[in-house]
Amino acid sequence: MKYSALSQQGRRTTPPPISWLMKTALAHPGLISLAAGFTDNATLPVRSARKLLNEILATPQSGQPALQYGTTAGEPALRQLTATRLQQLDGQQDKSHAADRVIITSGSQQLLYMTMEALCDEGDIVLVEDPTYFVFLGILQSRGVRACGVKLERDGLSLAHLEAVLERLKKSGELARVKALYLVSYFQNPTGATTSLAKKAAVLKLLRSYERAAGHPLYLLEDAAYRELRFAGQDIPSALTLRGAADRVIYAGTYSKSFATGARLGFGLLPEPLFSTVINIKGNHDFGSANLIQALLTRALASNQYGQHLNRIRKGYARKAAIMQRALAEHFPADAEIWSAEGGLYFWVRLPAKIRTGVKSKLFQTALKNNVLYVPGSLCYADDPARPKPDHEMRLSFGSASETALREGVARLGATLRQLSSRKS
Amino acid sequence: MKYSALSQQGRRTTPPPISWLMKTALAHPGLISLAAGFTDNATLPVRSARKLLNEILATPQSGQPALQYGTTAGEPALRQLTATRLQQLDGQQDKSHAADRVIITSGSQQLLYMTMEALCDEGDIVLVEDPTYFVFLGILQSRGVRACGVKLERDGLSLAHLEAVLERLKKSGELARVKALYLVSYFQNPTGATTSLAKKAAVLKLLRSYERAAGHPLYLLEDAAYRELRFAGQDIPSALTLRGAADRVIYAGTYSKSFATGARLGFGLLPEPLFSTVINIKGNHDFGSANLIQALLTRALASNQYGQHLNRIRKGYARKAAIMQRALAEHFPADAEIWSAEGGLYFWVRLPAKIRTGVKSKLFQTALKNNVLYVPGSLCYADDPARPKPDHEMRLSFGSASETALREGVARLGATLRQLSSRKS
Repeated sequence: MKYSALSQQGRRTTPPPISWLMKTALAHPGLISLAAGFTDNATLPVRSARKLLNEILATPQSGQPALQYGTTAGEPALRQLTATRLQQLDGQQDKSHAADRVIITSGSQQLLYMTMEALCDEGDIVLVEDPTYFVFLGILQSRGVRACGVKLERDGLSLAHLEAVLERLKKSGELARVKALYLVSYFQNPTGATTSLAKKAAVLKLLRSYERAAGHPLYLLEDAAYRELRFAGQDIPSALTLRGAADRVIYAGTYSKSFATGARLGFGLLPEPLFSTVINIKGNHDFGSANLIQALLTRALASNQYGQHLNRIRKGYARKAAIMQRALAEHFPADAEIWSAEGGLYFWVRLPAKIRTGVKSKLFQTALKNNVLYVPGSLCYADDPARPKPDHEMRLSFGSASETALREGVARLGATLRQLSSRKS
Repeated sequence: MKYSALSQQGRRTTPPPISWLMKTALAHPGLISLAAGFTDNATLPVRSARKLLNEILATPQSGQPALQYGTTAGEPALRQLTATRLQQLDGQQDKSHAADRVIITSGSQQLLYMTMEALCDEGDIVLVEDPTYFVFLGILQSRGVRACGVKLERDGLSLAHLEAVLERLKKSGELARVKALYLVSYFQNPTGATTSLAKKAAVLKLLRSYERAAGHPLYLLEDAAYRELRFAGQDIPSALTLRGAADRVIYAGTYSKSFATGARLGFGLLPEPLFSTVINIKGNHDFGSANLIQALLTRALASNQYGQHLNRIRKGYARKAAIMQRALAEHFPADAEIWSAEGGLYFWVRLPAKIRTGVKSKLFQTALKNNVLYVPGSLCYADDPARPKPDHEMRLSFGSASETALREGVARLGATLRQLSSRKS
């Protein structure tokens, strides 16, 4: 055959960088991975999952529904518990937080995917933080959607740069192609940065002010995947609490990170017409996520096993983050800018601009030889012709490595940095 | 706002007919649904799922991996067990049946969705049985892919008509838009028809012979969702056993129907370049189905709890199918053509052409008043301008209703038919 039968999407979709990183990790036994976004194995709720599943499957009355099909939107009890929990976190109970806006999905990833399907045609534009969650960039790339990067500061994206980007798109006549802004608002993947409520409000207002020129709503897609992994400081209300949120804010959350990644259960709260559209799309994807897992999370939330589990893992991550912070202070050069986090799984390191961190860089390759892996920062930047991709940063995760491995991994990376800089001088 | 921000796909995607049927069922307490494609609640493996999950979660060694992320393609052990099982069913162990072609998905529905994403652009064509599985039609409609119906006979689709359709598309210059033929080959949803191996071979050969004119491979997508629910007669080898299958046949299977619908676990075997493409797409959808459910199925298969469960439910469905057959013989008019099945969940009934069965028909509405629900046949036909949609058929499921309800439901439907025909005469 001269041609393949693949679709444009099929041809476009590339293996995600994470596959390559995972393969690399597997190919190097003895490697310490500070790259994986996995949660800590030791903290997974083996005992409480066993207890809860035993209860669910103890009788045909509760067991059969858990092993049967459910509805596309998800178990009513879980949708309600999800809404209630968000109301508690946000200290607000209004239209934006209603249970009938909740859809239960296979991880928040599926919610992100379907939301992009519902909103974006090929050639459309989504604004993203610069840098951002690289699997989200994969969704956009795969679907031929363009990403425009907006500079990220410690307390969220730069409002001045957001306005400049919107203004540029308005001038170039491309504003009608903009559909949404994607914000990983709590302990962002990859930088650990958290967006202040004031910035969320300003972002929503700014988007609103460009809607007339766009000719349609500009949605704020808030990805709060790491919100419940806060181990220091105070929780910040979500964008759902903002004035005008009820018809503009999409909220994506997950129980994967906070309970068990092996459960792969996430959720979204969406305004109409997006809610109905995403439900219809999910009807074609899988007509509902596994009921058994939904029953597990329903019971975990209702019995507060979920809350107790969260308390335990927060303490664990607090300890590991402190270990990473100390190790970085000890082993990394003084001119490295370190973004530590009050939650989530990641630290972000900015090295002096002359030190390249990319996959092909001396640093990455030498680190690999020294048996330590990080995520090169450049993987987290959109293909945006408006700026060159920064290539002197790294994401370090304290999620899955043991405390000993964290210390050793950071020490190895620090030694690699010293090794290279001494060679150069 | 003057315009909505929805994508073309977002605008196109409609609520699936099944949602409407489910809502109707819920709104009529006392209704007997012969419409639902659910499996039998009473046969769900509550006890064995409990036992297996207890084993998995008994120790951190086996419990932690089940609650952690896995790989996008699925658990290696489950991929291997899936391949082995298919090899046993097909009595063949070759390239087409290799474990490294297996991808584990959220129901076979997700496999169908991603395969269509990998293959079809808007405006492309997929050949389908006439009638076919209506949720598959939903995928095509949502993505702007055209469906061309090929007449269905009792032993699979009409080869003469398939050739005529291919010839017509060749003449109209549209053959390059054809990407695949979709075949629900075992106890088809909705008709219960099973495709003979001879027909599968002839179909694959015919597709091959049009590839030169198409300019690319024409895939045979075999959906074997109901294969393991055979309760009479001998299993038929899959299309994977055919000469030339290794680079043209996509096989979709599921553990949802055969073990537990609430597990939502399916799988596919795909040739390259489709396998890699679908894996990459799944990386964007959810980067892997829930590991906990995969661990459950792995253990069910390895311990033969799966096989024992299958034996039990096959006996149950055999009994229920016999009840439906007797009830139809007793209560339905003699001029109704009844397609009974040797497996699966469905019977198909063709009434005389003058008796309309659609949602708006007198029959459907009167049946609803008499508290019995069926799936109108017309919902299972593609929007194909090449022929009018038949509207005198119905799908009857013996899956979820109890034995008593089956008898009563068919009696009510029969009475409704007599009621309407006596009024007319």
